[in-house]
Amino acid sequence: MLGKKGLKTKDEDIKNLAAIVGPKEILYHKEDLISYESDGFTIHSHMPKAVVFPKDTEETAKLVKYCSDHNLPFLARGAGTGLSGGAIPLNGEVIISLVKMKRLLHVDLENRRAVVEPGYVNLKLTNSISDKGYYYAPDPSSQSCCTIGGNVAENAGGAHCLKYGVTTNHILGLEIVSPSGDIMEIGHDGIPDAPGYDLLGILTGSEGTLGIVTKITVRILKNPEEKQTALAYFDDIADGSQAVSDIVSAGIVPAALEMMDKTAIEAVESAAFPVGHPKDVDALLLIEVDGISAGIEEQIDQILDVCEKRNVRSVKVAQDAEERAKWWANRKTGFGAMGTISPDYLVQDGVIPRSKLPEVLHEIHEISKESGLRIANIFHAGDGNLHPLILFDSKIPGETDKALEAGSACLEACANVGGSITGEHGVGIEKREEMHFVFSEKEIEAQTNIREVFNPHYLLNAGKLFPSPGRCGEVKKELKTAAAAE
Amino acid sequence: MLGKKGLKTKDEDIKNLAAIVGPKEILYHKEDLISYESDGFTIHSHMPKAVVFPKDTEETAKLVKYCSDHNLPFLARGAGTGLSGGAIPLNGEVIISLVKMKRLLHVDLENRRAVVEPGYVNLKLTNSISDKGYYYAPDPSSQSCCTIGGNVAENAGGAHCLKYGVTTNHILGLEIVSPSGDIMEIGHDGIPDAPGYDLLGILTGSEGTLGIVTKITVRILKNPEEKQTALAYFDDIADGSQAVSDIVSAGIVPAALEMMDKTAIEAVESAAFPVGHPKDVDALLLIEVDGISAGIEEQIDQILDVCEKRNVRSVKVAQDAEERAKWWANRKTGFGAMGTISPDYLVQDGVIPRSKLPEVLHEIHEISKESGLRIANIFHAGDGNLHPLILFDSKIPGETDKALEAGSACLEACANVGGSITGEHGVGIEKREEMHFVFSEKEIEAQTNIREVFNPHYLLNAGKLFPSPGRCGEVKKELKTAAAAE
Repeated sequence: MLGKKGLKTKDEDIKNLAAIVGPKEILYHKEDLISYESDGFTIHSHMPKAVVFPKDTEETAKLVKYCSDHNLPFLARGAGTGLSGGAIPLNGEVIISLVKMKRLLHVDLENRRAVVEPGYVNLKLTNSISDKGYYYAPDPSSQSCCTIGGNVAENAGGAHCLKYGVTTNHILGLEIVSPSGDIMEIGHDGIPDAPGYDLLGILTGSEGTLGIVTKITVRILKNPEEKQTALAYFDDIADGSQAVSDIVSAGIVPAALEMMDKTAIEAVESAAFPVGHPKDVDALLLIEVDGISAGIEEQIDQILDVCEKRNVRSVKVAQDAEERAKWWANRKTGFGAMGTISPDYLVQDGVIPRSKLPEVLHEIHEISKESGLRIANIFHAGDGNLHPLILFDSKIPGETDKALEAGSACLEACANVGGSITGEHGVGIEKREEMHFVFSEKEIEAQTNIREVFNPHYLLNAGKLFPSPGRCGEVKKELKTAAAAE
Repeated sequence: MLGKKGLKTKDEDIKNLAAIVGPKEILYHKEDLISYESDGFTIHSHMPKAVVFPKDTEETAKLVKYCSDHNLPFLARGAGTGLSGGAIPLNGEVIISLVKMKRLLHVDLENRRAVVEPGYVNLKLTNSISDKGYYYAPDPSSQSCCTIGGNVAENAGGAHCLKYGVTTNHILGLEIVSPSGDIMEIGHDGIPDAPGYDLLGILTGSEGTLGIVTKITVRILKNPEEKQTALAYFDDIADGSQAVSDIVSAGIVPAALEMMDKTAIEAVESAAFPVGHPKDVDALLLIEVDGISAGIEEQIDQILDVCEKRNVRSVKVAQDAEERAKWWANRKTGFGAMGTISPDYLVQDGVIPRSKLPEVLHEIHEISKESGLRIANIFHAGDGNLHPLILFDSKIPGETDKALEAGSACLEACANVGGSITGEHGVGIEKREEMHFVFSEKEIEAQTNIREVFNPHYLLNAGKLFPSPGRCGEVKKELKTAAAAE
């Protein structure tokens, strides 16, 4: 992973950065940098100046201070699984990779918290405490490789966020390195209404633009006594959407309430973990309830009743943990599975009030027809968090542009019904322009003023999250050109 | 309530402010202003310049713009029930009272949200939707008179926040007037991970220092199918504290888990709603569980089992809604009830990790002995949110100072075990100096820099929330002098 050629460079900055982390903890040769040109938003890429791997907070602070003092753009990177381009080095940044800061520092079961370094992988936390009956709730589909530091930056969600909330609801405290290299503690572990302004909230989901997280105190939860998981197949997606609304209206808060449409089902059944979903249904719901044993049967019965009333074709309940795990593995292949039915795909991430599901799904169908591109839908229906997957072939001239436009149209449809342009993937470079769908200039300015406070020289992760008039026009153009050129 | 003498003044500012709201919607005679000198933190008071009552957002914006353009300090006030002095006009502010902006603007049951004006009283919301089976969760003890605007400013909590979270967990969107008079929308109704920085989080709990809230979109919840409420009496408060930890460790999240110690029981049994608690017990727990019917009995049985193991003297379960309501009325008289056993009292508001309850309660007992002042404890035990009530007599020279010192010592004890200085009452003017217990200078500076962004001329609610070196030293002195002089 690290540069094999030793430190043979005349670049003073590289030498000085290497002096901080050691010569083996820096990459700067072009061939070593290629895999850092992009992240999960592969439509765009840019070459970084170097990648450095600090081993602790102090080294991170020194690297940041060096960059800040020498006017070098820089950004932090976790596993690089982000879907909106937040870790792409638009300005030839020095990438501070946090993957070597990956320790579980402390577990306090009594007070339900754990302290991890930012490079610690999401799923490892649950794996390390599950034998004691605990788990970490936010579960993005990439949880087996994404880092908790990256989750904090993007305020990551997941299938079980309907009941348990997104990352911000599980972060109790942070240690950060500010863009000028100061180490600060943010938040007060688990205080319901901590004194002062909610910096913890501002930092979480700030997409790496306000500071670099070096330590994270997270909330851990007791495993529910029981879980039940059901699948419901619908001949009409409108019935399925209505069932989603009805379930929540009945006062049930399922742990997860996921929907896949026909195209999505076709994809996951062609991918690594098929489970035999009928391919001729219009949509399916994957529903999980959890809690103490006594109430679970009743809840699942109530849910199945609702589905019956909405003309469900058939329902089934997982017979054991193994069957449940298979259904989830199938669901979690979702985005990647698109590769089995399309050369390229673009995943979007809009949010709408639950009651607008039928309307917006219809609208997305229309966008698909107009653009001539297939759009699959696989999403957190309970949250109203849509993930239209726009299928395209980048080899066909103009089709990448068409896909980007269709994606943007989907987000506009969400914004038009009082929704928003991201539910969990962030804005990054992908949706900067779409910020105008939901914010006025004044509202954007209020936010960039806050960035100014933390990041006054704008060296940390510049060009992300906000449209910047003039500059962003160019970047958008550049992005489209790059995409079209692939 | 309004000035009876018509507008007879030579003060140009008063005339101009009156021109915005109309001559009947301004108070400026000294005798009309007396009840606005203080709020629920009665130890301190200061005369405002005037009190104005806008009827809508536009008038509020005009008032703010006038103050901003004419360099007049100003602040917003709801019902004035705040316990940390956040609405006290330290600098002779123009008080913008929001009590006439008290409409319920919109209820959307399907998407579980309601839109209210800031002067709308907390309990009215639940009352207006309860017949349809819904309620608004945050329930501060003052809920029958406090306003939702004030709740947002203070990020108010309540007895049921253990399971349902404090105000910030229930706010989906805000309309605010910025300190320069601009109207802005903040947040995106119910989006799990809204794009951009979490301004909604920063505004909520900012204690009226960043803007004036003029419209609030709140989350409403479906009534739980069933509730069960139990009382458990302990001969040793340490056993009761341990039971709190054990209940939560068992994986149960009660809707409420409240504790009262012997002195608190003495007070509530002497107040308006006695329910016959034995006065010789050392502590009681008031425990409520809610949810779907099927699981409730089992949960309450599990809780009673835990109490048995911790040497409970006796337990009882409320036989019906009426008995439950009586127990809660008794609990909610808590703070006020202190008046029946002491001429004056000071309520503190510290937070600690649950596991530290026995240790910190012991410490508070020591503080009581050292100061020679009785301290009652009535608090949200499940959250680790302590409310030591320091009983004193302001007529005895020096006793007010002693009470303030004992209060500060209680907060220091909380901070020392990794806790914090406020769980729901805010910092206001009361706990400015105690911010040093939990924040470094740099961390405080990061926060005041944010205030600077929103409130650059520092005309809105100045002197609150943060210690300001030099100035605050003086204010603290002034406060103690004022208190001692009472």
